[in-house]
Amino acid sequence: MKKEILLFDSIRPVIWHNDKLRLLDQRKLPDEEVYLDISSTQALSEAIKQMCVRGAPAIGIAAAFGAVLAAQELIGVADKDFKRQFNLKLDSLAASRPTAINLFNAVNSARRLPLNIKDRVPTLLAWAKSWLADDIQANKTMAQLGAECLTENTRILTHCNAGALATGGYGTALGVVRQAYQKGLTDTIYAGETRPWNQGARLTLWELQKESIPATLLADSAAASLMKAGKIDWIIVGADCITRNGDVANKIGTYSLAVLAKYHQVKLMVVAPTTTFDLKTQTGDAVLIENRSKNEILPNYYSSIATLANAWNPVFDITPAELITVIVTEKGLVKSPDARKIEQFIQDLK
Amino acid sequence: MKKEILLFDSIRPVIWHNDKLRLLDQRKLPDEEVYLDISSTQALSEAIKQMCVRGAPAIGIAAAFGAVLAAQELIGVADKDFKRQFNLKLDSLAASRPTAINLFNAVNSARRLPLNIKDRVPTLLAWAKSWLADDIQANKTMAQLGAECLTENTRILTHCNAGALATGGYGTALGVVRQAYQKGLTDTIYAGETRPWNQGARLTLWELQKESIPATLLADSAAASLMKAGKIDWIIVGADCITRNGDVANKIGTYSLAVLAKYHQVKLMVVAPTTTFDLKTQTGDAVLIENRSKNEILPNYYSSIATLANAWNPVFDITPAELITVIVTEKGLVKSPDARKIEQFIQDLK
Repeated sequence: MKKEILLFDSIRPVIWHNDKLRLLDQRKLPDEEVYLDISSTQALSEAIKQMCVRGAPAIGIAAAFGAVLAAQELIGVADKDFKRQFNLKLDSLAASRPTAINLFNAVNSARRLPLNIKDRVPTLLAWAKSWLADDIQANKTMAQLGAECLTENTRILTHCNAGALATGGYGTALGVVRQAYQKGLTDTIYAGETRPWNQGARLTLWELQKESIPATLLADSAAASLMKAGKIDWIIVGADCITRNGDVANKIGTYSLAVLAKYHQVKLMVVAPTTTFDLKTQTGDAVLIENRSKNEILPNYYSSIATLANAWNPVFDITPAELITVIVTEKGLVKSPDARKIEQFIQDLK
Repeated sequence: MKKEILLFDSIRPVIWHNDKLRLLDQRKLPDEEVYLDISSTQALSEAIKQMCVRGAPAIGIAAAFGAVLAAQELIGVADKDFKRQFNLKLDSLAASRPTAINLFNAVNSARRLPLNIKDRVPTLLAWAKSWLADDIQANKTMAQLGAECLTENTRILTHCNAGALATGGYGTALGVVRQAYQKGLTDTIYAGETRPWNQGARLTLWELQKESIPATLLADSAAASLMKAGKIDWIIVGADCITRNGDVANKIGTYSLAVLAKYHQVKLMVVAPTTTFDLKTQTGDAVLIENRSKNEILPNYYSSIATLANAWNPVFDITPAELITVIVTEKGLVKSPDARKIEQFIQDLK
């Protein structure tokens, strides 16, 4: 592939700095650009739970550095005890959130590394740094592959934040958007606000405006009107998990957009690195969907009174493969995905 | 129709009190239950614009009492000057919001009343009070007609607030919900939060919990997952305008739900009094859709900086008649509405 200079690439949400993991606190954006220094696996688990770091690839990267923190906490522990204690710490990291498969893929990859007492930390650190570098490189490759699917004057709608903030840098879905904008293929970019956590309003808009890419926010439920008016060509999103049949778990609302896209003949692109594939899971029905606190969606008023008011707050939904136009990975495209094509794609990776 | 005692009927958002119009300030709910006393047409226009009072039937009722305020402001004006000045005041009321047809229907009805200098105010007041009473009675009739469409164990999703707060009392869509709950036809009621103004979260949940009806809030974009899981039988909504072919303008997100309902074989009921019909407009394409300020959806951050971040904030969308299972009015049902059936329905009213 021809190397191109990539512009619009200034954001790094996960950094290793002075033996600590530095996270851009995404709860505070866009109002405050504040970094947290994380020095323990326990603090990292909490930071993932609280969504200081979020986005499947970014959670995976944070967990990779979490393995380094685990080894730092176990300096001096003899090899015979290390493995058990290390695995317990990795277990607690893996338990922080249930849906993003990159978290489990990173943790399990760390478990398999051969480590010896003299250089556990440097070995893990080199591996974590390459996990991060590979992610950014994968995003840049996907950006080019994804942008090649687009024609001139493409009008794009994205959902949630699958940008630099959700990855090591540059982004998956927003990587394609950045690249398409740089190539002059689009200047019409819509972002759904993405309730209840407002990743679109708070994070995607922040990322794009920070790099002078124009974007227009809309309520999630307004997307249907935009499609009906013929104003969207492609919906471009990331993924938290892709199962063997090509079903995609992604931010709540993605399935809604996928059905609406089918109805309005709008194309749907899912952009995700191969670390997002869950090779052990056959279909989306088997993916564990995280439900978060009802207080993330209920107005405070209802928690202050005895009330029958409840809330249902699923964080992800499942988009069946048949609603997806193309899955873009750093290893190539899977067009009109299904179980057979994903199987072939996985075989070709080996 | 057999008279039944209706429970769950305690909320009156628009009241005439001491020569003033008293409005429950819906911007403050659920945190504060505060009433505003409105004594001028100008103050009423502002209250409608600011959505202190909202919901198509409630806006219509407020405008009817607005005509009384106009007459009070013109006490002593000779008949030869009155009509022109009265119409100017009604024009300014009509200009407060563009989409809810009940506003224009109420104002135009006031224009046609024969008035003479001696008893303008009492004549208008009696008319406005009957407009309010007719609305509540229509809601109670629709509640019974709508509930008759439902079977036992109906699982309902509603959108926005088409409740007591959106009407004179009892509600349109929520009137059906109240009645269905009272009859034991449902105990599973979901409410979409309804961005960006959160009428579902703030108003519908408040209304239902105030009358001890259990309800569950969800993000608008989670409705698709709920339908996919087979957990919704009927979507029940109100309307801001129904055109001659049966197209329905309603809160942004209604069209999205209608498409999703069609895809998942969920039924869609629109509940609206005949004051919501726009007999001058042939199809939904001709309905003027209000766009409100981008600041209702953009985080404050973006208004404090020079930015390319924009927002698109349409307040309503159009649901084509072919996606609607039944329109429920106080004069009867229109099943699978289309231009011919609506025409026949209108003829039968005469």
